[in-house]
Amino acid sequence: MTKDIAQESLAFHRLLGGKLEVSSLVRIRNRDDLSLAYTPGVAAVSLAIAQKKSLAFELTLKGRTIAVISDGSAVLGLGNIGPDAALPVMEGKALLMKEFAGVDSIPLVINTQNTGEIIKFVKHVAPTFAGINLEDISAPRCFEIEEALQNLGIPVFHDDQHGTAIVVTAALHNAAKVVGKRYQDLEVVIVGAGAAGLSIAKMLLGLECQADSCHLTNDSQIVKDVIVVDRGGALVAGRPSMNVYKQAVAGVSNKQKKSGDLKTVSQGADVIIGVSGPGSITQEVVKKLAPKSIVFALANPTPEIMPQEAQEAGALVIATGRSDFDNQINNVLAFPGIFQAVIKGRLTKITTSMKLNAAQALADLVTSPTPKYIIPEPFDPRVVKMVSQAVLNVGKENYVTKPS
Amino acid sequence: MTKDIAQESLAFHRLLGGKLEVSSLVRIRNRDDLSLAYTPGVAAVSLAIAQKKSLAFELTLKGRTIAVISDGSAVLGLGNIGPDAALPVMEGKALLMKEFAGVDSIPLVINTQNTGEIIKFVKHVAPTFAGINLEDISAPRCFEIEEALQNLGIPVFHDDQHGTAIVVTAALHNAAKVVGKRYQDLEVVIVGAGAAGLSIAKMLLGLECQADSCHLTNDSQIVKDVIVVDRGGALVAGRPSMNVYKQAVAGVSNKQKKSGDLKTVSQGADVIIGVSGPGSITQEVVKKLAPKSIVFALANPTPEIMPQEAQEAGALVIATGRSDFDNQINNVLAFPGIFQAVIKGRLTKITTSMKLNAAQALADLVTSPTPKYIIPEPFDPRVVKMVSQAVLNVGKENYVTKPS
Repeated sequence: MTKDIAQESLAFHRLLGGKLEVSSLVRIRNRDDLSLAYTPGVAAVSLAIAQKKSLAFELTLKGRTIAVISDGSAVLGLGNIGPDAALPVMEGKALLMKEFAGVDSIPLVINTQNTGEIIKFVKHVAPTFAGINLEDISAPRCFEIEEALQNLGIPVFHDDQHGTAIVVTAALHNAAKVVGKRYQDLEVVIVGAGAAGLSIAKMLLGLECQADSCHLTNDSQIVKDVIVVDRGGALVAGRPSMNVYKQAVAGVSNKQKKSGDLKTVSQGADVIIGVSGPGSITQEVVKKLAPKSIVFALANPTPEIMPQEAQEAGALVIATGRSDFDNQINNVLAFPGIFQAVIKGRLTKITTSMKLNAAQALADLVTSPTPKYIIPEPFDPRVVKMVSQAVLNVGKENYVTKPS
Repeated sequence: MTKDIAQESLAFHRLLGGKLEVSSLVRIRNRDDLSLAYTPGVAAVSLAIAQKKSLAFELTLKGRTIAVISDGSAVLGLGNIGPDAALPVMEGKALLMKEFAGVDSIPLVINTQNTGEIIKFVKHVAPTFAGINLEDISAPRCFEIEEALQNLGIPVFHDDQHGTAIVVTAALHNAAKVVGKRYQDLEVVIVGAGAAGLSIAKMLLGLECQADSCHLTNDSQIVKDVIVVDRGGALVAGRPSMNVYKQAVAGVSNKQKKSGDLKTVSQGADVIIGVSGPGSITQEVVKKLAPKSIVFALANPTPEIMPQEAQEAGALVIATGRSDFDNQINNVLAFPGIFQAVIKGRLTKITTSMKLNAAQALADLVTSPTPKYIIPEPFDPRVVKMVSQAVLNVGKENYVTKPS
């Protein structure tokens, strides 16, 4: 980020005092207005909901509103900066939800980083909202928190995991077309085993985890193999010092049980996806990939390897998280449409099938992928509509709330 | 409430889907907009707040936004209807905050009625907001919850207690003028020892409680005596079956240590204030008050005694909570101005002195009180401004956050 953007952003935030406001849908000009919107009229609305809880979706802001919740433990590339400093990011997320998808959302930054307390907080606040977007919560706590909340009755979606995974999956579909390989034949190496890394691995392999159990979905749209590499080398079943989330992924990935560091296990792979930090993918690594390789270097603001270097080392399709290079992998392609579907369909969960469908819809928006164009632009007006529809097409069959 | 108002209110809530929405303060039309409001620009805002937390007030919605929090345990006259059914009321409260005072606020209904969990919830969510309005939480839990949160760094204000107390105090100042008695000479009986009853007693006596200690403020604007009556009769020091909150009030009220039921202890009193339920104040009770008596019958929708009956029994000034009688004691006269002051002054607490000052300002808006006009109308445009200013006049000296 240039100093100019920093200064301009600070000035803009100071001028407006943030980015969102609360607006009235109705004017209160006289006693009649007051008696309809507040007492005594509102008592009838409360009694109706007391008799049938689901009416809160229709009679209050609940049916239109998402909470964006963070503990500030893993914010952007800034790390554990705490809830106060996380607030402008969450307010920004809520702003994008409104601007891109017309979805009302409210940022809630919370003053605890205790896993159990965060789970309780979300359970406690749930009656107010149609869905929960967890944001910038560090791994591995983010996995435990999200999994514990899957039966809350409203969707709980950790965007750093699934938003990233959806957009990566979409981009990978088109990258495969560009390099002339079948998606199902791809061997993928992921560098980084945090929220994004493990979630991408799970989506590419069709692995769905809830509470204490994981299962493979029967989706045909899965890659041949994935190897996830962390600081300790490749995740492989039986390797020591892996948390349960790494263990779950290790159990279904790395089918040839390769051990060793990135340089060793990535030889001959078709794809390398960096979700770690600057410098973790070298030209030497890219050179040893299979021909016509694909490199997604997603660390922000500085990618694991700069696009120019990756290209020189032989990569054919390169994507980053940055807007100033081609092929930006940006969560904003996914979460606004996902939550629009949550609102429209009154969904109770966001399943792996929905996410895979959303990824496919995103990929399909690029009819003729090229090395420089594998994923739509965030400002492509079709994006939100297609993602939302793709989620609802799955949701309709299985996951829509039935009126009680 | 007539059936018409109920039906009309339901239809209106259904049509709009509630009463509030979230609005963007900025458009996101292109990458430049995105880079200022979100990444990478927002990182500068987060870093600034990480270095100096109080900047969140200036750079995010925190500085402009209040949370309206309820567990749904004591909603309107409906009782413990739970969080879902409480949401339209909280959304209404937030609507009034915006419409009357331009204050942004967000309703949060929470799925726990455990005192400790509610305290934790408020502590956890505090970084997001400039102030907390607790609402419709049943007594005596509401006292413990509010007192435990007084050092949170932002004000925590239970409107059912203090909003009511402020407006009652204001009305009582003017009622005293009407009947030609000095406020400081009034002997007051309060029927009901819940949130409103105890809070009114404390304000009339200048009793301020925080955590485990209470003290009397040195304010000259206090009445001569108060007797609070609950189902067990008059609160008097040493009476059995009183919770600690009743004990605290008993310790400084009822100076002649009267025992007995309402009929017994109210003989000769100047004022009777009902905050209990229909029928709890009879004509017989009113007849035995001192001459030129004052009756506030605040139960909603059905007052403790109807105004006509109170008048027949000799009351000179009568107020209710209803908009269809003269002298409506309505919290909306207080809380919008209070929270406007919280926002404007970046207050950390709302003290008894601030509340007394707000009550005096409200009273002063009625320059020539009559039996039918002792308190301003909610739609009097001076109300919010004067209440807010009265709070800030105290706040300025003692309680405004100093930049750190």
